[in-house]
Amino acid sequence: MTDAPINPALAATFAPPVMAARRWLEGVTFPPERPLVNLSQAAPVDPPPAPLREAMGEAIGDPSAHIYGPVLGQPDLRAEIAARWSRAYGGEIEAAQVAVTSGCNQAFCAAIATLAQAGDNVIVPTPYYFNHAMWLHMMGIELRPLPCGDDLLPDPSRAAALMDDRTRAIVLVTPNNPTGKEYPDGVLDAFFELCQSGGLGLIVDETYRDFDSRSGAPHNLFACPDWQGTLIHLYSFSKVFRLTGHRIGALITGARRMAEVEKVLDTMTICPNQIGQRAALFGLQHLGDWVAGERAENLRRRKALEEVTDALEGWERLGSGAYFGYLRHPFDEPSDTLAQRLVLEQSLLILPGTMFVPEGDPFGGRTVRIAFANADADGLAEMGRRLAAL
Amino acid sequence: MTDAPINPALAATFAPPVMAARRWLEGVTFPPERPLVNLSQAAPVDPPPAPLREAMGEAIGDPSAHIYGPVLGQPDLRAEIAARWSRAYGGEIEAAQVAVTSGCNQAFCAAIATLAQAGDNVIVPTPYYFNHAMWLHMMGIELRPLPCGDDLLPDPSRAAALMDDRTRAIVLVTPNNPTGKEYPDGVLDAFFELCQSGGLGLIVDETYRDFDSRSGAPHNLFACPDWQGTLIHLYSFSKVFRLTGHRIGALITGARRMAEVEKVLDTMTICPNQIGQRAALFGLQHLGDWVAGERAENLRRRKALEEVTDALEGWERLGSGAYFGYLRHPFDEPSDTLAQRLVLEQSLLILPGTMFVPEGDPFGGRTVRIAFANADADGLAEMGRRLAAL
Repeated sequence: MTDAPINPALAATFAPPVMAARRWLEGVTFPPERPLVNLSQAAPVDPPPAPLREAMGEAIGDPSAHIYGPVLGQPDLRAEIAARWSRAYGGEIEAAQVAVTSGCNQAFCAAIATLAQAGDNVIVPTPYYFNHAMWLHMMGIELRPLPCGDDLLPDPSRAAALMDDRTRAIVLVTPNNPTGKEYPDGVLDAFFELCQSGGLGLIVDETYRDFDSRSGAPHNLFACPDWQGTLIHLYSFSKVFRLTGHRIGALITGARRMAEVEKVLDTMTICPNQIGQRAALFGLQHLGDWVAGERAENLRRRKALEEVTDALEGWERLGSGAYFGYLRHPFDEPSDTLAQRLVLEQSLLILPGTMFVPEGDPFGGRTVRIAFANADADGLAEMGRRLAAL
Repeated sequence: MTDAPINPALAATFAPPVMAARRWLEGVTFPPERPLVNLSQAAPVDPPPAPLREAMGEAIGDPSAHIYGPVLGQPDLRAEIAARWSRAYGGEIEAAQVAVTSGCNQAFCAAIATLAQAGDNVIVPTPYYFNHAMWLHMMGIELRPLPCGDDLLPDPSRAAALMDDRTRAIVLVTPNNPTGKEYPDGVLDAFFELCQSGGLGLIVDETYRDFDSRSGAPHNLFACPDWQGTLIHLYSFSKVFRLTGHRIGALITGARRMAEVEKVLDTMTICPNQIGQRAALFGLQHLGDWVAGERAENLRRRKALEEVTDALEGWERLGSGAYFGYLRHPFDEPSDTLAQRLVLEQSLLILPGTMFVPEGDPFGGRTVRIAFANADADGLAEMGRRLAAL
């Protein structure tokens, strides 16, 4: 009698970091005068605005909201995304170039599946978004880390030096998770040229686009000639409309790759759920002003985070933006034990940099990510006091 | 300037069959006296019953229904599944052994990911469920076909002869898609013993369990010693509660494998959507009588299908059950062109057997699948007239 095997590629990757961090809280009693402050997850905690909830309630009453839809998403939502993105980026995007996905993680999984197989490699700036690393590990695809410097920007010439004949793609996240860094237009241009000339895919994950502090289009890649053959843009409706519990994202790429994306999405989930798709469509059509207010509030919180961390002795803020601040801590202690000590001694949960780098990369041990978006100015001041008291 | 590559493992698998069949309908005008009869997809077309829709509407009003939940699903739903399955199968299943997934396709993807990697092989009886084949192709895992005879049952001794040191699992679907076959207890026992003694995983997909014509537990595998090390049970809430548009399924296995399942689900979708999970829980707790009525109606339709196909000259019914009838056709023509001719000449859409077998397998060319569950007795009589008129 023998237990069935475990795929060694899965056994070799790490457990979901957010779940691991939640487990640090288990069995811990937080004193009433110092309740838990949880700045670990990049997720809104408030429900979507009332008009959006009403629209979802109405969708429940529509019989067609309960049956399978097309694999690539509802045509009206795909068309709305195509039209709005075309305007926002100054490019030409057709509905057929848009897939609606079951969240942005799935969009990344599908993008990678169309590009690479076991034995190939993909270049990923570090610190990275951990679920990107997990998918590459699981698929037996080598993750080639491209370490960012203290400016938290990936360097195209260093990326070029990492490329070989099994390199299939480069992954960029802007505004970045975990660092908050907003990548300048020039950096994206340089990576696009590198990928297009080298025949690689360029995956650009813009989950936090709506909280970018800059005005106008964050890049002009959709206006580049033949972007369809190189670019794979990823997006999430989770943050902008507070729809994390409804799992809707999007992927934009050329028609040839989209035919392969359709195979992946069909096989994984058949179609994205219908209520979430209705919610995303309503949000795009009706919540522009509300989103502008959310962005303004987010930028105020970012400023509060910057003021609080500027005043912290010994701590150095390397980046801030989107939902995140990324800090170098002053302790002679790796960030993963430091983060657990913060829970016990200061009732504060933030994620250690070790969760965002390959094992052994010293940059992770010296840094932490603060997901500030759920804390107001008072909450961030309290966070500052607790970090200072450690 | 070079387009980014396409993963050859994806390029080598086929396009989603249900979408391909939908495209056969494009541009076809059906005469008013002979409207389209679509018996292609295994999906309820009516919305869920009113109490379930009401429960979903109420869920929209709950703030916690809009935020991320645990990767493996809501604890109350996992506990409910564990308790009900324990009773139904006469075994001991704990909540920690249950994962809620974004549909049953994702449960299959996760199960395979935990078992096998590129270069391994998995044994799959043919005809198979096409999305299972697609996932194995995409992952670079060899699908070893185990052809069923005219009795549509897989033979454990033939499976044993296919096994080698890279075989990681055997996949069974009962009641079967596409054949409708309800596997006898003894067949499942024999496969379980084969897998347990050989150290393979046994995946048992019971998506159509609630429409099994037999009373009592369909098998006793959950009562077998150490089932946790071998068995991976898959389930879908899509058919039983008419929730296809909400993407909720389940996976049951032992704790060691569940830790790996958690990695996969976190990376693919973070968590299953919350509204669908609420709906599944409500259904389990409140819709037992309604499901019994649905099952009775399904069995009446199955009987009607059997009567209609018995009367069809030259056609041979090899199987019927769940949502499906599986027939051998009398024409000297492959089933894929036959099915397209049926659309044009008889306004009838059914799927050809070629979609359920590896390319070149002659069994597929001679057979068709009828998804009868959406047709009442009149509809099935009309289908019979159209098949006879071809």
